[in-house]
Amino acid sequence: MIDINWKPDKNSSVTLYKQIVNYIIREISTGNFVIGTKLPSQRKLSEMLGVNRSTVVEALDELKSRGFVEGKGGGGTRIINNTWSLLSSTSKLNWENYIDGSIHKPNLRTIQMVNKLEYEKDIIRLGTGEPGPELFPQDMMSKILNKYSNKIKSLGYLEAKGLLELRKILSQYLKNYGINVSPASILIVSGALQALQLISLSLLPPGSRILMENPSYLKSIHIFQSLGMNLAGLKMDNEGIIPDEISKNSGKKVNTLLYTIPTFHNPTGIVMTENRRMEILNTCESYRIPIIEDDVYRELWMDELPPMPLKTKDKNGNVLYLGSISKSLAPGFRIGWVVGPEHVIDRLSDIKMQTDYGSSSISQLILAEWISSGFYTEHLEKLRIQLKHRRDKTLEILSENFKDIALWNIPKGGFYIWLKLKCNISMNKLFLEAIKEKILINPGNIYDFSNNQHLRISYSYVSNSDMEVGLKKLSYIIRDLIKQEDSC
Amino acid sequence: MIDINWKPDKNSSVTLYKQIVNYIIREISTGNFVIGTKLPSQRKLSEMLGVNRSTVVEALDELKSRGFVEGKGGGGTRIINNTWSLLSSTSKLNWENYIDGSIHKPNLRTIQMVNKLEYEKDIIRLGTGEPGPELFPQDMMSKILNKYSNKIKSLGYLEAKGLLELRKILSQYLKNYGINVSPASILIVSGALQALQLISLSLLPPGSRILMENPSYLKSIHIFQSLGMNLAGLKMDNEGIIPDEISKNSGKKVNTLLYTIPTFHNPTGIVMTENRRMEILNTCESYRIPIIEDDVYRELWMDELPPMPLKTKDKNGNVLYLGSISKSLAPGFRIGWVVGPEHVIDRLSDIKMQTDYGSSSISQLILAEWISSGFYTEHLEKLRIQLKHRRDKTLEILSENFKDIALWNIPKGGFYIWLKLKCNISMNKLFLEAIKEKILINPGNIYDFSNNQHLRISYSYVSNSDMEVGLKKLSYIIRDLIKQEDSC
Ligand SMILES: Cc1ncc(COP(=O)(O)O)c(C=O)c1O
Ligand SMILES: Cc1ncc(COP(=O)(O)O)c(C=O)c1O
Repeated sequence: MIDINWKPDKNSSVTLYKQIVNYIIREISTGNFVIGTKLPSQRKLSEMLGVNRSTVVEALDELKSRGFVEGKGGGGTRIINNTWSLLSSTSKLNWENYIDGSIHKPNLRTIQMVNKLEYEKDIIRLGTGEPGPELFPQDMMSKILNKYSNKIKSLGYLEAKGLLELRKILSQYLKNYGINVSPASILIVSGALQALQLISLSLLPPGSRILMENPSYLKSIHIFQSLGMNLAGLKMDNEGIIPDEISKNSGKKVNTLLYTIPTFHNPTGIVMTENRRMEILNTCESYRIPIIEDDVYRELWMDELPPMPLKTKDKNGNVLYLGSISKSLAPGFRIGWVVGPEHVIDRLSDIKMQTDYGSSSISQLILAEWISSGFYTEHLEKLRIQLKHRRDKTLEILSENFKDIALWNIPKGGFYIWLKLKCNISMNKLFLEAIKEKILINPGNIYDFSNNQHLRISYSYVSNSDMEVGLKKLSYIIRDLIKQEDSC
Repeated sequence: MIDINWKPDKNSSVTLYKQIVNYIIREISTGNFVIGTKLPSQRKLSEMLGVNRSTVVEALDELKSRGFVEGKGGGGTRIINNTWSLLSSTSKLNWENYIDGSIHKPNLRTIQMVNKLEYEKDIIRLGTGEPGPELFPQDMMSKILNKYSNKIKSLGYLEAKGLLELRKILSQYLKNYGINVSPASILIVSGALQALQLISLSLLPPGSRILMENPSYLKSIHIFQSLGMNLAGLKMDNEGIIPDEISKNSGKKVNTLLYTIPTFHNPTGIVMTENRRMEILNTCESYRIPIIEDDVYRELWMDELPPMPLKTKDKNGNVLYLGSISKSLAPGFRIGWVVGPEHVIDRLSDIKMQTDYGSSSISQLILAEWISSGFYTEHLEKLRIQLKHRRDKTLEILSENFKDIALWNIPKGGFYIWLKLKCNISMNKLFLEAIKEKILINPGNIYDFSNNQHLRISYSYVSNSDMEVGLKKLSYIIRDLIKQEDSC
């Protein structure tokens, strides 16, 4: 049992809890406190050290988050690392401190498994959110590379905001959606995901609250949470986010921001209606809540054009607008863009420079050629038809095999069908059983932790015949589990 | 004057200082405390609230770093923001909290100016650290793109560690330096800069100490500092870091890591000798200090091959090895790599996936072709000759124009000459005067904040004729300033 004959100096300008942290680390480093030893209880420590219990709690929290101790309260805190074992082991690393362990770890594991299994041979990927290899416009790409091959005169570091030529082209292209911005208000990023990272690194104090649809793609990534933000899910109906949910969930004491995917929402496929867009914009304006509009699926409409972006109606620079070439052409470019007020874009681009000195110039040059040559528009027209075929076929297969066991939406665009099982079975079991049959699914609890009845089916990736084989097998597995678990 | 009739709850599990922070933010948000108002002095606050002064200091520090108040002590703390003005303004943003304002801001400004002025017309860039446009192997690139144009079958998201084919090629290539690793121990990144960001995000607790050469490239970027690490500069001699400096500067109570550029050091051009490499490795091993070896200039030797990397002799997985294609081929690829123990690479690649889903596949595919086709080696042979010509010419120009006013090294490779002025003039003035004459220089205090007598000349970027014009003009400006400041 550890004995402490030391007390913090109450007259020091160093806070009491910091003094305690430093003292304990010193004792651990010098070997006086040995790995494996228990610390005295919080009450005892507060007596021994002559400080409030809250000060002890704070010191232990810091030691815990820095990986020196583990356990909680009641004499259960144990020394588990010294400085070296900490630095050399990767079991307990800084960024994890930010993540609420109990919520994130299981999902992280599923996602890591998905990321890995995707590259297994012969696996049928029913949930993958990208255009499949057959949808890649190989001929056009080949023409563009050929035409472009002797035009690359040099490949230096670029301006902070990205290739000017590409930003000019995008500034022009965005006019199609009623968005009128200069190239200086556009930042090229390495995919929309990076935009989210830059926003959380450069615009948001930790502790900010992020409102988002529930479920949401955002839940499946850890960027905001890793950097200390809190997520709050908003209820949706068929027209998108229910406006009252915003006022109900806006933080009173913290900075609040709305992240939304209004067009062909991931994972539900919902399109926010025109009216709803105005309501959301107005509500956010009156509550002074900035908006991130993630619009990466916009181009992929099938039956009719979706309503214009929120950004189109944004008079006060309240909306940061995200686009990407990942879904409509190919993720391998790793190119996306952020559009917003120039001073915000300046800030984001300064951080981007400190992060990676800009995105691939090769990708940017080739993408500029894609758009300016007209090939991109031509490709989109074909892609929409192909996706529509795939969607229709998938809906047909679902009707034939899932009518009695599931409900689903009919998406008007994008990649996703949000399948709701009628009976409660363990999604985790389903996920693992499916893998045994070489079928990879995206369980719904990736997008909504409390959700155990949904899965996201993507018709963008697999061929129609694989879709048929995969979904049929999946329906058998589900029926088996329902029987086993006797859950209907 | 603000009056406070509230006291923190000493029995609460929330720490006193947090309670105070929350209270003040609440009062600011509700408008009870108005922007512009002064807070009572620290002493008064500590009386009013019934807490230690250190608790007040801590609360004010947090409020300050979150941008709610400014000023220090003695009744001088003033409310400057409410939550909304904070979120909407970009003047005071989270990441800045991490940066030691007084040290970094001026340099950041210089670097921002450099970043911007580089794209001005007709400016002569004497400090730019990249191969100039004339050194870009346009013909080879064109051949590769042509040959490759119909080989791109799809461009999906890639495996977390990057294109397997490229990692295999690199694993093979690294054998040239005695580094024997499997592709699973290599992570492809978007340039070596991103590797540093990933390392600081995923391996280091805030508060870690980073040892590095003084001066160092590392000082000119803000990644480690932004994420809460402390930098400590180590003295060098002509053989590299002086080993005793490591023990002298290693943290006793904090995690310590060594960042080094042993080969063609940026900005001094120094090459660490074979013996010194062993000494540094051994010292670090005995102090259990992991090493980041930044080896991006290795290929650019001129007179003789440099000693093998530290990594070559690293038996215990103590070294993370960084490479990049930026300096030896072109920065526009935005491709670099990290080599290290597999579990560390796993960790880094998991964070990379959460950051940007991997680097440009186009860049990776084309680079793989560059290396496997043999074009890369062929290019390097030419590049070395061209760089040597440029170096020799630059040394000649220096001899003709700077002999009486400066000293410099003769670099054996890389891009840089570290010019030391014999007289003390204001580098800031020199920087601004040079800009007037359309000459852009990299002042030495970017790499060593206390250094006011050096500049980094890079012979990689400008043509010989521009170098002659630029350096001549620069020598006149320096002579003028010496006269004006009467500083010799
Ligand atoms: C809504 C949404 N936003 C952003 C992304 C990330 O796309 P990118 O490849 O542009 O980073 C995705 C991809 O899964 C997505 O579904
Ligand atoms: C020592 C050193 N490391 C890393 C980098 C960054 O290179 P990259 O373009 O690979 O990010 C540079 C470039 O300035 C450098 O000088």
